[in-house]
Amino acid sequence: MSYEKYMKEAIKEAKKAELKDEVPIGCVIVKDDKIIARAHNLRESKQQSIAHAEILAIEKACKKIGSWRLENCDLYVTLEPCPMCSGAILQSRISNVIYGAKDFKGGCIESCMKMYEVAGFNHYPKTISGILEDECAELLTSFFKKKRLINKQKKASS
Amino acid sequence: MSYEKYMKEAIKEAKKAELKDEVPIGCVIVKDDKIIARAHNLRESKQQSIAHAEILAIEKACKKIGSWRLENCDLYVTLEPCPMCSGAILQSRISNVIYGAKDFKGGCIESCMKMYEVAGFNHYPKTISGILEDECAELLTSFFKKKRLINKQKKASS
Repeated sequence: MSYEKYMKEAIKEAKKAELKDEVPIGCVIVKDDKIIARAHNLRESKQQSIAHAEILAIEKACKKIGSWRLENCDLYVTLEPCPMCSGAILQSRISNVIYGAKDFKGGCIESCMKMYEVAGFNHYPKTISGILEDECAELLTSFFKKKRLINKQKKASS
Repeated sequence: MSYEKYMKEAIKEAKKAELKDEVPIGCVIVKDDKIIARAHNLRESKQQSIAHAEILAIEKACKKIGSWRLENCDLYVTLEPCPMCSGAILQSRISNVIYGAKDFKGGCIESCMKMYEVAGFNHYPKTISGILEDECAELLTSFFKKKRLINKQKKASS
């Protein structure tokens, strides 16, 4: 199934983030059944609040096709996009957003709000959620579990 | 009045955009009463969907202070931020957003939706609207008026 095929590529990106001690979120953008951009969260490494996986992938995709209009492109991301990224997807005219895990602490497609049901914008992407949801969520759960454990050990030894 | 002082700087940026035939929107970010970043819309020149004035200014401000956390920073922008930029402001922990004109076709602070009244996010900037509103709006109105006129002339001569 191609949704899973591309979500697996997004998961590969998320794992690259984890290796850099970044929250493991990965993204790929697909056009005509080819990956035209791939990126992972780099907020801490770059010390850039906008360096989410989706923003970096959109930036690369625009460069790749030489246009700010990513029409007929699909964006795969392991976690439900935040307000900034949901907005960037809308601004770049991406056709479909496919995501894995829900984000109850910031997701703007279904969790905290339904941005694409707000009237007045000039583009509305279609969305598909829950693709390899458990695997995408597990990446995040185990990352934060490890982080908490390290913090606990640091406190105990200080 | 300092709100007007900095909005005038944002307007200067918007005028730079206009000179490049970009929709005239400008932004400055202020910390400790100093401008730490300034930018204007460059979507067409860069062919980048994320190259809105606010995103470019946030990117510069993060570089300038070496952190993704723009705490105690104020963002001045000539037009009410879109979903992407309202989200980027939230993600970067900016304290205050001050804007000029309302955007009925995409503004996410008061016009199309009230993003900062949605529950569940981990930061909520304060907002002030209507600073030099007429001047900010007039920049946009005259830009689109000129554009329509040029398009009309092109059609007539073809």
